[in-house]
Amino acid sequence: MPNPRLNVTLQREREEPLYRQLIEQIRAQIDGGDLPGGTRLPASRTLAKQLGVSRISVVNAYSELRAAGYLNAHAGRGTFVAREPLAPEAAQPQRPAPATRQRGAAIRQMMRLARKPSVIDFSGGAPPSEFFPVRYLQEAINHVIERDGADALAYEVPEGYLPLRSAVRDYVRAIGIDCRVEDVLITGGAQQAIDLVLQSLMRDGETLVTADPTYLGIIDIAGARRVHIRGLPIDEDGICIDALENALGHLRPRLIYVMPSYQNPTGHLMPLHRRRQLVRLAARHRIPILEDEVYREFRFDGEELPPLKALDESSVVIHTNAFTKVLLPGIRIGYLVANGPYYERLARVKQAADISTPGLNQRAIHLLLERGVLAKQLERNRLELRRRRVAALAAAQRYLPAGSRWTAPGGGLFLWVELPAAGPSAAETFIAGIGRDVAFAIGELFYTGEGGSHALRLNFGIHKPAMIEEGFRRIGEAWAALVAEYGDVEQGAVL
Amino acid sequence: MPNPRLNVTLQREREEPLYRQLIEQIRAQIDGGDLPGGTRLPASRTLAKQLGVSRISVVNAYSELRAAGYLNAHAGRGTFVAREPLAPEAAQPQRPAPATRQRGAAIRQMMRLARKPSVIDFSGGAPPSEFFPVRYLQEAINHVIERDGADALAYEVPEGYLPLRSAVRDYVRAIGIDCRVEDVLITGGAQQAIDLVLQSLMRDGETLVTADPTYLGIIDIAGARRVHIRGLPIDEDGICIDALENALGHLRPRLIYVMPSYQNPTGHLMPLHRRRQLVRLAARHRIPILEDEVYREFRFDGEELPPLKALDESSVVIHTNAFTKVLLPGIRIGYLVANGPYYERLARVKQAADISTPGLNQRAIHLLLERGVLAKQLERNRLELRRRRVAALAAAQRYLPAGSRWTAPGGGLFLWVELPAAGPSAAETFIAGIGRDVAFAIGELFYTGEGGSHALRLNFGIHKPAMIEEGFRRIGEAWAALVAEYGDVEQGAVL
Repeated sequence: MPNPRLNVTLQREREEPLYRQLIEQIRAQIDGGDLPGGTRLPASRTLAKQLGVSRISVVNAYSELRAAGYLNAHAGRGTFVAREPLAPEAAQPQRPAPATRQRGAAIRQMMRLARKPSVIDFSGGAPPSEFFPVRYLQEAINHVIERDGADALAYEVPEGYLPLRSAVRDYVRAIGIDCRVEDVLITGGAQQAIDLVLQSLMRDGETLVTADPTYLGIIDIAGARRVHIRGLPIDEDGICIDALENALGHLRPRLIYVMPSYQNPTGHLMPLHRRRQLVRLAARHRIPILEDEVYREFRFDGEELPPLKALDESSVVIHTNAFTKVLLPGIRIGYLVANGPYYERLARVKQAADISTPGLNQRAIHLLLERGVLAKQLERNRLELRRRRVAALAAAQRYLPAGSRWTAPGGGLFLWVELPAAGPSAAETFIAGIGRDVAFAIGELFYTGEGGSHALRLNFGIHKPAMIEEGFRRIGEAWAALVAEYGDVEQGAVL
Repeated sequence: MPNPRLNVTLQREREEPLYRQLIEQIRAQIDGGDLPGGTRLPASRTLAKQLGVSRISVVNAYSELRAAGYLNAHAGRGTFVAREPLAPEAAQPQRPAPATRQRGAAIRQMMRLARKPSVIDFSGGAPPSEFFPVRYLQEAINHVIERDGADALAYEVPEGYLPLRSAVRDYVRAIGIDCRVEDVLITGGAQQAIDLVLQSLMRDGETLVTADPTYLGIIDIAGARRVHIRGLPIDEDGICIDALENALGHLRPRLIYVMPSYQNPTGHLMPLHRRRQLVRLAARHRIPILEDEVYREFRFDGEELPPLKALDESSVVIHTNAFTKVLLPGIRIGYLVANGPYYERLARVKQAADISTPGLNQRAIHLLLERGVLAKQLERNRLELRRRRVAALAAAQRYLPAGSRWTAPGGGLFLWVELPAAGPSAAETFIAGIGRDVAFAIGELFYTGEGGSHALRLNFGIHKPAMIEEGFRRIGEAWAALVAEYGDVEQGAVL
């Protein structure tokens, strides 16, 4: 018997993307027994060349099939058809996973490539670790344990540790939010806060609207929660009001999700007039807004703007923020501010989700707030991030391809760059960049639908100026090498 | 204009419970404007007497209406019709909250009564706080911060801190589970583990089956996730296989949830033959089992039994356990062991839910495991819990009403008592008990449907023998006082 061999014919005239055709043909051959368990598949580079598609199409197809249990990858040895039959219920998923979840999985695989220590990695969403107040935290934990003993380690109430809730109330009052302690719910970071809002306000198959591009986490959550997510066009002031008004009428969404300050990924700051329009529109349609303000405190210049919740007279806004970006990501403390009936539902879902956020972590963060560590950190963070922004803008000017576009961010961690549309895509540049030990986040990740094929998100905040310069130089080089190698680069087959 | 006044007529011949009729009539009068915002309602005691129903029916009705935003309670001043109109979307909830959620809210209100410091409280599910290895934890945290610095405080990967995953693998291998590190997912306690399983395997409106009574948390989660939960009859060996077989055929559930060891609330231990039957049945029907083993390590006597996962040849079992009960509830570290496709889905949902469990907490627990603190704790916990069980059984024998029934638990924290069916209900005894500074969990809480009206769950593990004796004495006294006051106690109007 001859060695089993993969046999693929792609039809370029079909509307279906090539990588999806590739997935289906491989799957059919495994299901049909033509490719038995243990069969080695060609290397992605080889198969890409053979089929005349970009390597990332193959990488994506393989990683989706791995996520679905069809393939195994063994580092250094290649990709194989999985030997073990899938668990009964999962073998033929009755529910096609939404595209967003599949994409999420594929990208996570890709992003792992960025984890080599030699890589200058601009892909993450985290603040720089040298900002973490490690010693202050250690001291705070010791103080809490000495002070509270076993109480600090018992179950906490679902709503959160009361002194921390009070501190949050004071904190958000200072930015104009009319808040009582009963309106504050402590969460496991802003991610859990968002997730709780979706769980308590939305059912399977309902729709939420957001900007396009938007925060990757909300796309993930929407996929995990099986709700539809619809990204609306943006301009430099954020989500377009006309498009939103139209969508509210036609889609009857259950929720609007926005990041008014230094939006992830674009870095846009929504100006006051747009904020007012947005809140008025939501109130008129009686559709709740979830505003995610996790980058709010990373403001370099310009005056401070009120959060949407401060402009909210109809209790349609739910406000979330966290101490993850500004203090410590891994301690996982965030909060929600919501009124009355929303709050009741959120607290119930929180209890079901994990009973409560770890009490020790809450108490330690409370102590850091009380001791003024947050305020001190913010001041220092701002100065340093401003310095890094200067370096990033200079390096972008110097090294990124001619014809690229970006906006100087007034805050946050990110520079959002659009490469020239006629040249290599962001995904191709990513693959070429990995070979040069540099990584960034691919724009498509942040789109709910099509878009972002030539966009990059660069977290300049996590690197010192010299590294920023070197990293941007490598990106420019990777791009230029692609152009030199392929000339007019293949389009369309890319995810 | 005369003072607005509540006007209730209950129809005892109707099938609908009286407290539910009460809720509906109050709601109708508020919605209809007969009871404007700010109207004071009669005290629960007064209204109960006036209507000839038990006080707890009124307490429950008021607390459901509070949870739904219709009423406000002001401590010491009484209960009032809410002044603020409800937020637009919530005013008329389009989705009637499932009974379980309403009940959860009502009970949470009631259970708050148990929090007075003078109360001897048997109602909780937590282990005794004097068991917490506070100093060991403090030392472990300091060690981790000194060793890992900012790394301990950065984002952790969703699957969990790798050395902890390896330690869990070794731990579950020792109890017969064939496990690789890739099968271990770290979670925010067992509660989050259960929640992730429901999220990744079930959609709105699908059905899960469990024992009746069962863990309260899964009833909460099912309510929050809008899935149906069906409790099946149990005997002393756990869930009845005939009933389960029948249910698998008729209900086509998506999941079976069981707690094989020292079940919460009954304390039952499922014997080996029942474990085997259960796994075989699930494999035949291809329906996954989630086994929750959080009380497994609290074994007083008898030999250790393999978890279901150790008997599982078809990868239908998902195993969960946590370090919450045996070490530290508030640190919120648990885990799931699952194979292949289940695992992939769980890891994605975990990332969407909260990105990751706090890395510092994971590292500290890992160090405690490595240093043998868990093993040391377990030995000591067992000895002490066994002593408390002896005290609880003696006190039950001496003080609980004649005709009560219970089974001596072979492990866990709980004694499950059935009061005589002809006497006061558990809820009535609870109210009378609060007046005598004693509290317990009411059996109905743990039922997915009807049942448990005369059952109590007593956490004897959290009190020293002298307190157990005194507490049980008060319960007996509360019950006897009800009998003395009401003679043949009212039945049927109780929730």
